[in-house]
Amino acid sequence: MSRTYLDWNATTPLRPESRAAMIEAMDVAGNPSSVHDEGRAAKMLLERAREAVATALGAEGADVIFTSGATEAAAMVLPGRDIQCAPVEHSAVKVWCDQVLAVDGDGVVTVPDPARASLQLANNETGVIQKLPEGLASSDLTQAFGKVPFAFNWLGITAGFVSAHKLGGPKGIGALIVRKGTEVGAILRGGGQEQGRRGGTENLIGIAGFAAAATAAQRDLSAGLWDEVAKRRDALENRLLEAAPDAVIAGKDAKRLPNTTCILTSGWKGETQVMQMDLAGFAISAGSACSSGKVRASGVLQSMGFSDQQAQSAIRVSISPALGDDELNQFADAWQKAYSRWRDRNG
Amino acid sequence: MSRTYLDWNATTPLRPESRAAMIEAMDVAGNPSSVHDEGRAAKMLLERAREAVATALGAEGADVIFTSGATEAAAMVLPGRDIQCAPVEHSAVKVWCDQVLAVDGDGVVTVPDPARASLQLANNETGVIQKLPEGLASSDLTQAFGKVPFAFNWLGITAGFVSAHKLGGPKGIGALIVRKGTEVGAILRGGGQEQGRRGGTENLIGIAGFAAAATAAQRDLSAGLWDEVAKRRDALENRLLEAAPDAVIAGKDAKRLPNTTCILTSGWKGETQVMQMDLAGFAISAGSACSSGKVRASGVLQSMGFSDQQAQSAIRVSISPALGDDELNQFADAWQKAYSRWRDRNG
Repeated sequence: MSRTYLDWNATTPLRPESRAAMIEAMDVAGNPSSVHDEGRAAKMLLERAREAVATALGAEGADVIFTSGATEAAAMVLPGRDIQCAPVEHSAVKVWCDQVLAVDGDGVVTVPDPARASLQLANNETGVIQKLPEGLASSDLTQAFGKVPFAFNWLGITAGFVSAHKLGGPKGIGALIVRKGTEVGAILRGGGQEQGRRGGTENLIGIAGFAAAATAAQRDLSAGLWDEVAKRRDALENRLLEAAPDAVIAGKDAKRLPNTTCILTSGWKGETQVMQMDLAGFAISAGSACSSGKVRASGVLQSMGFSDQQAQSAIRVSISPALGDDELNQFADAWQKAYSRWRDRNG
Repeated sequence: MSRTYLDWNATTPLRPESRAAMIEAMDVAGNPSSVHDEGRAAKMLLERAREAVATALGAEGADVIFTSGATEAAAMVLPGRDIQCAPVEHSAVKVWCDQVLAVDGDGVVTVPDPARASLQLANNETGVIQKLPEGLASSDLTQAFGKVPFAFNWLGITAGFVSAHKLGGPKGIGALIVRKGTEVGAILRGGGQEQGRRGGTENLIGIAGFAAAATAAQRDLSAGLWDEVAKRRDALENRLLEAAPDAVIAGKDAKRLPNTTCILTSGWKGETQVMQMDLAGFAISAGSACSSGKVRASGVLQSMGFSDQQAQSAIRVSISPALGDDELNQFADAWQKAYSRWRDRNG
């Protein structure tokens, strides 16, 4: 059976450009820390990739520190700094912060003290985009990177977290971006790599894949591919709401990522919908991938004022330029059919 | 000009098996934490790789926690536990420990209190192999893994650190191995991956490459390929010592890795030799890759009683089954020639 992948915010398939760059990097045998020819070739690959990622992020002149992902980047700058955040943050941020910032019904966060706060640029479950206040300590840029245009250098933040696998790069590689010269205490120590801020031999193949994916993602964004995604997403939402007029799209009135729909059909368990759609050939999720399998309502939705029952009915559909109208219509058909069956049994 | 890579302990070229497994894993699109079909396929790949790494390590039944490398593994279990180590450890271990354990002239370490100590199985610079005392808290197994036979389950240790790129796998992936159920406080938090011990979406492509490399490395080891390496290494050492009778092989009287030669030619700077050999087409190192480029004598050699001048003259030649007699003879010729020139100028 053919499958349609509608879980882009959990992780993306590898872009062809990323795949090619990784395969090419497989032939680079040296350790970037070695001084001989093989080591220098590896070092050159590393530094070129760093420049490409900085360019894609609009972070020219800032420090790009390669990490195993945004989770590690967050763990490098958040602990022990008395940072505030909202309950809409990813768990990799929340775990280090005081979750006191207020969230309104649209998912928009208020930040009274930016210098002491971390605020995501876009939410993984609802797609809601925040306006980052000037002087913000840090921002999880993971879901926004590659989907909406921004430049790190213009965000007015000190630190940002990104992961490659949300924009067509491999899993297990990402970066901490900090304004030039920002002090960062290393949690992985020993080798002196990454200017002493992150020890350990660099994930060279992953880094090459990250750089190629970031470059390709920015090219797609500039070419307007995500504007098309927004139109298709809006059409999809209209179809879903026609079928289920009582359903609610979380954050519908806020500025959102072009690809994300979080729809709540109170009473119909999100986990059930995920399983039914999976059997029908569609990969969607109920909340973030990290919390998948846990039967717990989303803290993101609860903080927006949704009840437990509403939150537990949420599914997330997250799409990409790779998906055409046909596939989205097929999904809408399948979902409508499942919804009708559920309503008939429970109505 | 053809190049000969004699810096296997710094990092290894990617094995064909590892390359193939990584390319295959590039087609696995899902996030191992997702519950749909794509997610489950990713999860299956992850768990099969975990089993393969456990088998290669003789760690069946133990917990294999994938990390970005041995550096991260060390940072997960060493800090804040008042652990003692010797100055021969890799800097990724030393940085978290009290460097008080005694080292003898052969590089052998004495461990009075194993439960409070970390001791490497093999040294990266000299190749010296330690006898691990029963009840040892942890061991850096990175250089030994794939070069000498051992089983984690028979070492009598609680925790071990390994990196894939020392045995033909990709850089940026490794593991912490702990006896089943050992408490490990996560330093990367949030997503609940790796039983809550290491947050962040898993480096699936790297993990697939690690598993394939570990399996192939153990196959080569069982087939006796490293016994051949030891013979070639011994022949190489004899040739070097014939040319330079005053030179010293560090740890020559100790049990050593089959592939490692650390030779000291007092007065002739190691860094100079590395550059001369590099120009002649041979990649070797002066100490560990991580400390390359730093003009500092090796702490490993100083702790074995060598003087600063002796330590600064050290080069490390580390070979593999991929290298034949011809290549090693060519290296010996080139080194002898350079040595004669140096002696003529300084003698």
